[in-house]
Amino acid sequence: MRFDRPFEQYALGERHRSRGRTITEADIVQFAGVSGDFYPLHMDGEYAKRTPFGERIAHGMLTLSAATGLWMMEPGVVLAFYGIDSLRFVRPVKIGDTIYVESEVKRLTERGEEAGLVTVHQRIVNQREETVVDAVVHVLVAREGKAP
Amino acid sequence: MRFDRPFEQYALGERHRSRGRTITEADIVQFAGVSGDFYPLHMDGEYAKRTPFGERIAHGMLTLSAATGLWMMEPGVVLAFYGIDSLRFVRPVKIGDTIYVESEVKRLTERGEEAGLVTVHQRIVNQREETVVDAVVHVLVAREGKAP
Repeated sequence: MRFDRPFEQYALGERHRSRGRTITEADIVQFAGVSGDFYPLHMDGEYAKRTPFGERIAHGMLTLSAATGLWMMEPGVVLAFYGIDSLRFVRPVKIGDTIYVESEVKRLTERGEEAGLVTVHQRIVNQREETVVDAVVHVLVAREGKAP
Repeated sequence: MRFDRPFEQYALGERHRSRGRTITEADIVQFAGVSGDFYPLHMDGEYAKRTPFGERIAHGMLTLSAATGLWMMEPGVVLAFYGIDSLRFVRPVKIGDTIYVESEVKRLTERGEEAGLVTVHQRIVNQREETVVDAVVHVLVAREGKAP
């Protein structure tokens, strides 16, 4: 999503598609280090061969985290990541897959004089346009003239 | 949560508190690198001083990712991270804060002959026992004798 302007400037139904990002083996190793999640589905190729996935897959939380890195966030706009609803990890992301974030603004809610909540339906898709993650995300953005 | 046994062995109302993890500045820097999220609230101390938080805070997704690293996951048990509902980032996590994951099993749902869904209410708390993240998480675990 483009969080690049104050609350007043978003429109319901507005859509955005992010640039892509290829999820590499290095990303999985680095993410295991920072999260502390070394579960063998991500880290043990021999184990992963015996699962329905057939190979190591990216942590769901890595895919979701990389999506926030694909958001366009202008300084002074995003006040806080407010929450997530109805998130489903629909398909695995394999090493070498490229993800894109497809967003649509679903709801705009005033939150006092300083902020507004932008609610977005976010689909993370792969290079075959298959949905890998489907979720609703809520981001608190500054109102006009209220940037930090 | 302890995902350390097959589906048949969980009980509704079962609770677990994880060990702690201190979220350090190094975690924030490393998480920015792997996620690609360099938003100034996390990376620019001078910017952060002007926000209500008063200082740099951890990415919400870092806190959530670190929680999965605090889960106890026995190989052969967790088949997939299925989804998240009703997640709210309630309070900031500041550099030096220590988080713990408090879990309670809320629902147990059979998913065919191989798997079952364990639905957990997960509260991430800090060293003052304040909730920082509140969410419902769903994890697909193997049924007895069905481990990969």
